[in-house]
Amino acid sequence: MTPGTIHGVGLGPGSQDLMSVRADRLIRGATHVAYFRKKGRRGHARSIVEGLLAPDAIEIPLEYPVTTEIPVDDPRYNELLAAFYDKQVAQLTEIAAAGQDVVVLCEGDPFFYGSFMHLYTRLQGRVPVAVVPGITGMSAAWTATGRPVTWGDDVLTVLMGTLPEAALVEHIAWTDALVVMKIGRNLDKLRRALVRAGRDDEAWLIEYAAMPQERIRPFREVGDSVPYFSILVIHGNGRRP
Amino acid sequence: MTPGTIHGVGLGPGSQDLMSVRADRLIRGATHVAYFRKKGRRGHARSIVEGLLAPDAIEIPLEYPVTTEIPVDDPRYNELLAAFYDKQVAQLTEIAAAGQDVVVLCEGDPFFYGSFMHLYTRLQGRVPVAVVPGITGMSAAWTATGRPVTWGDDVLTVLMGTLPEAALVEHIAWTDALVVMKIGRNLDKLRRALVRAGRDDEAWLIEYAAMPQERIRPFREVGDSVPYFSILVIHGNGRRP
Ligand SMILES: C[S@@+](CC[C@H](N)C(=O)[O-])C[C@H]1O[C@@H](n2cnc3c(N)ncnc32)[C@H](O)[C@@H]1O
Ligand SMILES: C[S@@+](CC[C@H](N)C(=O)[O-])C[C@H]1O[C@@H](n2cnc3c(N)ncnc32)[C@H](O)[C@@H]1O
Repeated sequence: MTPGTIHGVGLGPGSQDLMSVRADRLIRGATHVAYFRKKGRRGHARSIVEGLLAPDAIEIPLEYPVTTEIPVDDPRYNELLAAFYDKQVAQLTEIAAAGQDVVVLCEGDPFFYGSFMHLYTRLQGRVPVAVVPGITGMSAAWTATGRPVTWGDDVLTVLMGTLPEAALVEHIAWTDALVVMKIGRNLDKLRRALVRAGRDDEAWLIEYAAMPQERIRPFREVGDSVPYFSILVIHGNGRRP
Repeated sequence: MTPGTIHGVGLGPGSQDLMSVRADRLIRGATHVAYFRKKGRRGHARSIVEGLLAPDAIEIPLEYPVTTEIPVDDPRYNELLAAFYDKQVAQLTEIAAAGQDVVVLCEGDPFFYGSFMHLYTRLQGRVPVAVVPGITGMSAAWTATGRPVTWGDDVLTVLMGTLPEAALVEHIAWTDALVVMKIGRNLDKLRRALVRAGRDDEAWLIEYAAMPQERIRPFREVGDSVPYFSILVIHGNGRRP
């Protein structure tokens, strides 16, 4: 039997009409649809495709055993997640081996800091895997600010809030345009790093880019906490005619 | 009369089905479609939408007065381009003032090193302007390599080949994942910079990502020249369970 293909499909930043025509077609035609979610939640990726799935599509929620309960540098975190990915890979491989395609829903672009990458590397060589790129959350974020992010030969640096403060400071000081993702509980550290790099006044915070709750503020107006879907942007000021 | 809106619409990396559902809808419904092109050429953005335009859509080619004939650091380059953008803005403003919407076709994501940005800043405040983000060329490029670009808290740096060699060396040495765009006549300089940073063996070159001529090679196999649509990628190797 010809094995099915596992498609990692980028959904884009959150608005249904910002997914690609290819993603839209694959999702509407899918017999099996898998998506990550936190236990007990609907799942953000699943909610983006609401109304698109075929009525008889089989849904396969992939429920994280842990999200923020254990710190990422605790060795148990990696062990738990590795076991989780192995289990999901076994499940998906079985479906593909039976000749069925599976669409795995991925927020933004699958290969850009995405969870699907952990399935992908384990599936490679076992069953056919294909990836559909998507519009990233950061593209939606800088578009929401109403100002282009990079001009001429501006350098753009993308950082995760999980980096140590010293690394944040150095990279923030030494780039033209900046994007910071995974801010959540790293907010205070990120704020200190921006101040130390002398760039806190240039930064914007975008929450829920391209979603109904979208909100854009200068970073200095941000209080004690930000939601998971938050991105910091500093715009470049490079050469322009 | 209500003025029309100028829509800067991201087309994505080149494959028609990688444009967003929103872009597809706007383009099919457009009465006026503008796009940049080199004099005497068809225009790459125009070719991406082949077959989508309404039969009676009015096409507005925006022809660059200069592309590579004058170096970008020659003051005449900026003068010529500034005059060109001002002229196009006058033309588009007139159409919008007459109550008509215009769709401006943009390769990739409009706010990410795009030509539309130069129209956008001049149109802002004069007529309504809206921007639809798109899948970037770099997303298509790393997807084409079949390997995720960033893991865990990898730093991603995006550089233009037009940067001075010393700046290239420092930034290439001091990032996890790397993207270099605008390589063309900067190829030799970029190669020297990669060698000096000790990273030439990690680099991949992707030509025409998501287009029929797509080609992926280790950078060390690249010869004397690369086409305009070329992106260099170094993958990150960050934390993963
Ligand atoms: C695990 S990463 C996934 C990135 C995704 N693959 C992409 O291409 O954008 C999750 C982080 O992305 C950012 N993010 C993604 N989409 C977003 C959106 N629409 N609005 C705000 N932040 C977003 C947030 O910083 C969040 O912490
Ligand atoms: C003026 S920039 C435009 C970038 C575009 N706005 C984007 O979002 O990708 C042009 C450069 O983008 C890169 N590029 C864009 N799309 C590409 C593709 N599909 N394949 C290879 N390179 C691409 C090339 O390096 C080219 O020199």
